[in-house]
Amino acid sequence: MTDFSRLDGRAVDEMRPVRITRGFTSNPAGSVLVEFGNTRVMCTASVEEGVPRFKKDSGEGWLTAEYAMLPSATHERMARESMKGKVKGRTHEISRLVGRSLRAAVDLSQLGENTIQLDCDVLQADGGTRTASITGAYVALADAITVLKERGVVPGEPLLAPVAAVSAGIIDGHVCLDLPYEEDSRAEVDLNVVMQEGGNFVEIQGTGEHGLFGREQLGQMLDVAQQGCEELIAAQKAALGW
Amino acid sequence: MTDFSRLDGRAVDEMRPVRITRGFTSNPAGSVLVEFGNTRVMCTASVEEGVPRFKKDSGEGWLTAEYAMLPSATHERMARESMKGKVKGRTHEISRLVGRSLRAAVDLSQLGENTIQLDCDVLQADGGTRTASITGAYVALADAITVLKERGVVPGEPLLAPVAAVSAGIIDGHVCLDLPYEEDSRAEVDLNVVMQEGGNFVEIQGTGEHGLFGREQLGQMLDVAQQGCEELIAAQKAALGW
Amino acid sequence: MTDFSRLDGRAVDEMRPVRITRGFTSNPAGSVLVEFGNTRVMCTASVEEGVPRFKKDSGEGWLTAEYAMLPSATHERMARESMKGKVKGRTHEISRLVGRSLRAAVDLSQLGENTIQLDCDVLQADGGTRTASITGAYVALADAITVLKERGVVPGEPLLAPVAAVSAGIIDGHVCLDLPYEEDSRAEVDLNVVMQEGGNFVEIQGTGEHGLFGREQLGQMLDVAQQGCEELIAAQKAALGW
Amino acid sequence: MTDFSRLDGRAVDEMRPVRITRGFTSNPAGSVLVEFGNTRVMCTASVEEGVPRFKKDSGEGWLTAEYAMLPSATHERMARESMKGKVKGRTHEISRLVGRSLRAAVDLSQLGENTIQLDCDVLQADGGTRTASITGAYVALADAITVLKERGVVPGEPLLAPVAAVSAGIIDGHVCLDLPYEEDSRAEVDLNVVMQEGGNFVEIQGTGEHGLFGREQLGQMLDVAQQGCEELIAAQKAALGW
Amino acid sequence: MTDFSRLDGRAVDEMRPVRITRGFTSNPAGSVLVEFGNTRVMCTASVEEGVPRFKKDSGEGWLTAEYAMLPSATHERMARESMKGKVKGRTHEISRLVGRSLRAAVDLSQLGENTIQLDCDVLQADGGTRTASITGAYVALADAITVLKERGVVPGEPLLAPVAAVSAGIIDGHVCLDLPYEEDSRAEVDLNVVMQEGGNFVEIQGTGEHGLFGREQLGQMLDVAQQGCEELIAAQKAALGW
Amino acid sequence: MTDFSRLDGRAVDEMRPVRITRGFTSNPAGSVLVEFGNTRVMCTASVEEGVPRFKKDSGEGWLTAEYAMLPSATHERMARESMKGKVKGRTHEISRLVGRSLRAAVDLSQLGENTIQLDCDVLQADGGTRTASITGAYVALADAITVLKERGVVPGEPLLAPVAAVSAGIIDGHVCLDLPYEEDSRAEVDLNVVMQEGGNFVEIQGTGEHGLFGREQLGQMLDVAQQGCEELIAAQKAALGW
Repeated sequence: MTDFSRLDGRAVDEMRPVRITRGFTSNPAGSVLVEFGNTRVMCTASVEEGVPRFKKDSGEGWLTAEYAMLPSATHERMARESMKGKVKGRTHEISRLVGRSLRAAVDLSQLGENTIQLDCDVLQADGGTRTASITGAYVALADAITVLKERGVVPGEPLLAPVAAVSAGIIDGHVCLDLPYEEDSRAEVDLNVVMQEGGNFVEIQGTGEHGLFGREQLGQMLDVAQQGCEELIAAQKAALGW
Repeated sequence: MTDFSRLDGRAVDEMRPVRITRGFTSNPAGSVLVEFGNTRVMCTASVEEGVPRFKKDSGEGWLTAEYAMLPSATHERMARESMKGKVKGRTHEISRLVGRSLRAAVDLSQLGENTIQLDCDVLQADGGTRTASITGAYVALADAITVLKERGVVPGEPLLAPVAAVSAGIIDGHVCLDLPYEEDSRAEVDLNVVMQEGGNFVEIQGTGEHGLFGREQLGQMLDVAQQGCEELIAAQKAALGW
Repeated sequence: MTDFSRLDGRAVDEMRPVRITRGFTSNPAGSVLVEFGNTRVMCTASVEEGVPRFKKDSGEGWLTAEYAMLPSATHERMARESMKGKVKGRTHEISRLVGRSLRAAVDLSQLGENTIQLDCDVLQADGGTRTASITGAYVALADAITVLKERGVVPGEPLLAPVAAVSAGIIDGHVCLDLPYEEDSRAEVDLNVVMQEGGNFVEIQGTGEHGLFGREQLGQMLDVAQQGCEELIAAQKAALGW
Repeated sequence: MTDFSRLDGRAVDEMRPVRITRGFTSNPAGSVLVEFGNTRVMCTASVEEGVPRFKKDSGEGWLTAEYAMLPSATHERMARESMKGKVKGRTHEISRLVGRSLRAAVDLSQLGENTIQLDCDVLQADGGTRTASITGAYVALADAITVLKERGVVPGEPLLAPVAAVSAGIIDGHVCLDLPYEEDSRAEVDLNVVMQEGGNFVEIQGTGEHGLFGREQLGQMLDVAQQGCEELIAAQKAALGW
Repeated sequence: MTDFSRLDGRAVDEMRPVRITRGFTSNPAGSVLVEFGNTRVMCTASVEEGVPRFKKDSGEGWLTAEYAMLPSATHERMARESMKGKVKGRTHEISRLVGRSLRAAVDLSQLGENTIQLDCDVLQADGGTRTASITGAYVALADAITVLKERGVVPGEPLLAPVAAVSAGIIDGHVCLDLPYEEDSRAEVDLNVVMQEGGNFVEIQGTGEHGLFGREQLGQMLDVAQQGCEELIAAQKAALGW
Repeated sequence: MTDFSRLDGRAVDEMRPVRITRGFTSNPAGSVLVEFGNTRVMCTASVEEGVPRFKKDSGEGWLTAEYAMLPSATHERMARESMKGKVKGRTHEISRLVGRSLRAAVDLSQLGENTIQLDCDVLQADGGTRTASITGAYVALADAITVLKERGVVPGEPLLAPVAAVSAGIIDGHVCLDLPYEEDSRAEVDLNVVMQEGGNFVEIQGTGEHGLFGREQLGQMLDVAQQGCEELIAAQKAALGW
C-alpha cells in the first residue's frame, strides 16, 4: 500500500541485532557491553559499603546511575564535559532516567546498607543510547548482586524481575521500533518505554518535537515497544543463563 | 464504594483552583503569575534580537526556557543553585521540558530571527510546578508575541494553539488529577501530560517509582489529564480575553 | 530658583510610595513583599537549627543573607547566575551588605544555636533594590522570630530595634532621596544609608563614580536619608502592627 | 585624661610607616610595592590594546582592577581561591572598590581605546589591605600612563589628581586612624575613605558591625581620615618625584 | 643469584602481551583499542577543520590530546570528573604528555590548517595507562591522516616515524619493564620513556617517590625501556600493515 | 671553535645569579624569596595540625604544594586562574612536581600527624620558575620544621638532606644550564632535574618538543644539571647558615 521502507531494511517492528556481553571488564562487580546495532554502551555496576546521607540508618540500600558519552562516540566529536566543567542537561536527564528505571529492578530493603553505582558509558552512539543503557545495566546489576551475595554482604534477595527499555517513533507517519540516529533525528514523535517483565511500565516518555500525537498513535507505539521489550528481556535472560 | 478521599476534599478528577494573572511585572514583554492552588510560578517571556549560532541565517527564530525554584519556595529551604555553582539535574530536566513544550506552541519560521526566552521562577511550591510553568508560559508567550508584532519585529503569525500541562497520578490505587506536594510524594505513579488544544499530546512522561502501571491505568490517567488540560486551556483563553 | 524637577514629580526629599506585605508566601517562617515604587523584592526569613562551624558551641546563633535578581527583573533580561555557574561581584557585595545590616537588628546571644537565613529575591528592579531588601528583611526577620518564639526554640529576646535603608544621591547638583533606576544611572554621587531606629548608622556607603563629593554635600545627603529611614521605620512598624 | 593607648604606641591620628617602592617588578608597565606598616601589597598596572565590549567604538578607554590575597599572606593560611574554583564575596567587593576608586583618577576619554588592568596582590596582610591597594595602585597607574605616552599609544592626558585611601575606626570609644589587623578585628566601627587631592571624597564606606555610630562620630572619623589621606598623597607624590 | 620473581612470571625485561585493534569504533577518523596486558585504552583521532586561535593564519595544523579514565576502570570506582566539575591534576598532566608526545609524530607544517584531536579513554586500568595511550594514539593518528589524505584535505605528508612509550621501574632493587598496577604502586622509582623509531627520546620522566636513583640505575632503566619501545614500534607497524 | 654565545654572556654551564632571602614575610612558619636571575618566587611553608583523610591515624605527617603565577608576573599579563574558575594543566603539573620533590626532603614518619603546605607564588617570571620554586621551598621547609620543633609539635627529625632543582637544555645544538625565558622558548630540548645532596635524582623530566635527543645528549645535560644542583645546594646551606 505504502512504499515506506527503512534504510537498514528492517521491518517497522523489528529490533536491530542485540548483543549482550558479560564480563566486558574485570574491575567492577558487574560489567556488560550492550549493543543495539551500532550503538555500544559499557554498563558497569560497582558496589560501595554505606549509603548516602538521606538513607543513613534506614536499613535499606541505594542505587544510583551515571550516563555519559565518550567524546568520540558521536559522528561529530563532542567536547568532553569534564573539560568544560559543565554537565549537559541531556546527560543529567538520562542519568536520572537510568537510576529511576533500575531502582524498579531492585528491592532496596533487601540490599542492606550498600550502594550500587551504575555507570553507562557510550562507546559508540547510533540512537537508542538511553534504552540500551537501561537494558545493559540490568545485566550488570544482576552480576553485581551475585557477587555481593557471594561475599555475604547482602542479607536478602534484592534482585527483581528484568527491566528493559526500547524506543519507538513515528517516521513519515509510520510507527517504527528501535530508531537509529538517522531515524531518530527526523522522527515526528519519539517514545521511550521502560518495561518490566510481565508487561507493566516503569516509565514512558513520549515527545513530539516535530509533531503531535494522538491516543491511537500512542497505543500503536506502545504495542511495538512492548514487543521490543519482551525480546530484550529474553536476550537479558539468555545472557544471564536463566 | 471505597472510602478514599483527598486531603483537600477535591474529587479525584478535579483541578485545584487555577488563577492566571497577566502583567504581573512590567519589564518583560510577557509576565504572568500562574497559580495551581498553593503552587505559584512567575512566568515571563523576554525577547532578544538574533538567534543562537545553530540557527544563524536560517531565517527562523528560536525559543528556550529556564525553570528555577526560589530557595524559600519549598517547605524546607533549598540551597541556591547559583551559590553552589551547580544546577541540579531536576532543574535542567524541567527547563528542557518547558522549552520543548512551548516550542510546540510557536511556528519558528514565522518568528523572524528573534529569540524568545521563557523564565519560570517558582515563588511557592506545592506540587505541579512544571505543569503550572508550562501553562503559565503559554500566556506569557502570547503576550510577548503581541508586543513583538506591535513593534513590527515579527514578520508572520508565530503563535499556535494553546498548550497546557497537568499531572495525574495513582494514589492508593486511585487515579487522581493535579497532585499537590503531599500526594505527589506518596503517589505510586506520576504522569505529566502536555497537550495542545484539540486533544493531541505534545509530551507525556509517566514514572512509577513506587509502583508499576499497566495499559489500563495509563488510559485512565490520560483521561483525567486530558480533561484537566481542557480546563486549563479554557482558563488560558479566558485570561487572554479570547 | 532652579527649575530642577524629578521625572516622577516627587519633591527632592520625598520617598516613592512604600508598601510592605507580610505573609506573601507561606513556607518560610517570615515572608514579605516590599515595594519602593516599582521596585519589588520578596524577602524571606528561614530558620535552621544549628549554626555554621565558626559559631559551633558558642551558645549564639547566626544570621546570613543572600540577595539575587530574577533574570527578568530588569529592563533587559540578565543571564541567570546559576546557569553561568558564576555569581557576580555585585550580587556578593549586596548579599554581604544585607547580612551585616540585619545582624545589627538581632542579638545573636539571645537566639540560641539557630541560624536565620534571609533571602531577598528581586522580582522587579527599578533602583534601590538593596535598600528595599534591607527594609523588607527586617519585617521578615521579626515574623520569623515570632514563629521561633512560639515554637519555644528561642530562649531570649533576640529582636532589636528596626533597621531600614534608603538611597540618596546628587543629580544635576541636587540632593535627592530614594533614586529610581533612571536617576541612579546618571547620579553624580550615590549614597546608601542603613540606619537603626533612633538615628544611628549601621552602615553608610557613598560612591562618586561620576563626580566627587565634599563634606557639605555628604551632610545634605545624610539629612534626607535620615528622614527617609524614619519614614521607612514607621512603615515597618505599621506593617508589624506595633 | 583617658589611659587609652595603641598597641604599637602610635597616636590615635598617626599613620603607620608608609613606604612606596616603584619598579618592584619589571614586566608590567607599572609595578609598585606599597607598605602600610606590616601590610605589603604588590600593585601593578598592565596595559592592553582594546576595550571590553561595552566600551567598543566609544573612543574611550577602560580601567579595571583585581585584588587578591596570597594564601600565605594571613596569620592562618587561607585556601587558594583558584583551587576552590570560587572567588570569595570579600575579594569581589574589594576588587570592585579598587576599580571604582582608580577610575576617579583617570580621564577615560583621554586614554584612547586602551584598557588598564590593575592587580593588587597582598603579600602580607596586617589590616588596611584595601586602602594600601588603592594608594599603591595610583602610583602604578601613573607609571603605566607614562609608559603609554612614551610609546605614543595615548592621545591625551588621562592621569588626574592623586587618589589615596585610609581606614579609620572606633576602638573602645576612641577614634583611631589606619587600623592594623589586631585593632580592625575588635573595632566597633570601621570606615574606609577614598579621597582625591583637594579633599573631596571618591568613596566612603562605614560599617558598624560591633556597634552603631552617630553623625558626630562620623565627623571625627572623617577628620582623621582626611588628614591620613593627605599624608598618603604626599607620599605618592614624593615617590613619583612630583 | 637472587630469587626475585615477578607476580605474573615475566622476565624483568619482558613486556606484557600487547594487542592493537584498529577500527575499534567507526565514527572517529582513527579508532584503536590498545592493550598492555589488562590495561585497555580506547584511542581515537578526530579531525576538525581550522586551528586554535594561536595558530590562525600560520598555514600549519595543530594536534591536541585528552586522556581520561572511565569511573569504573580502576579497582575501586573513582568519582566522575565531569560530575565533580573538576579535572584532577593527574589527568591534566597525562593529557599534556600525550599531546606533546604525539606532536613529535606529526609535521604540523604538512597538515594544513586542520586540528587533530586525540582522545585516550581508559576502559580498564592496570598500570601503564599513559604509555599505552601514547602507543595506541600513534596508530589512531596514522589512520586519521590516511582518511584526511583520501578526502584531499591534507596537502602534504604530515605523518612522521612511529612514537611509542613504555614504563620501567625499580622494584626491590631490580630494574623491571612495563609495570602493572601492583608493581607500580610499590616501585621505588618509576620512569616513563617516550621514544621515536630510531632510538631518540621524545620525553623521559623519572620519579623516585619511594627512593632516589643514580646515573647507573637510570642507564639500566633506559636500556630496558628502549628495548620495550622497539617491540612496541614493531607492534604498531604490524597493526598498520607496514 | 663555534661562535655560540648566550644573550646574557654566561658560559653554557653557568648559573644565573642566585639569591635566597629568608624571612621574606612573617606570617608563615617559613618564608623565602628565591631569585634565579630575574625569576623571583615567594616560597612559604605553613603548618596545620592534622593530616588529610588518606593519612588519618597513620602516625605520619603529610606535605603538599601549590604553585601559581601572579597575573602580572609574565611579560604579557595572564588571566587570573581564580577569576576564570579554572586552574591550568601547567599549574597542576608543576604543583604536583614541587610536592613530589619536597616529599623526598622530609621523613613523614618523623613529622607527627601534621601537614606542611608549601606555596610557591611567582612574582616575576623569566624561565626556571619550577626549579627556583623547588630550590626555595626546601629552605622554607627547613625554617618551618625548626619552628615546629621549637613549638614541640614535631616528635622526631623529619628534615632530610637538601633538594634542589635546575633546568638544562639544548640550544642550537649546545647544552646550556639554567635557561631564562628567551632561551627556554626556543630550546630544542628542555630537561628539569631535581637532585638531592649526594648526587642522586629525585626526578628528571626531559622533553623534546622542538627536537629529539639521544643518550649522549641526555648525559651531557645531566652533567651540567648535576653541577648546577650542587651550586644551588651550597647556596641553600649558606642561606641556612649550615
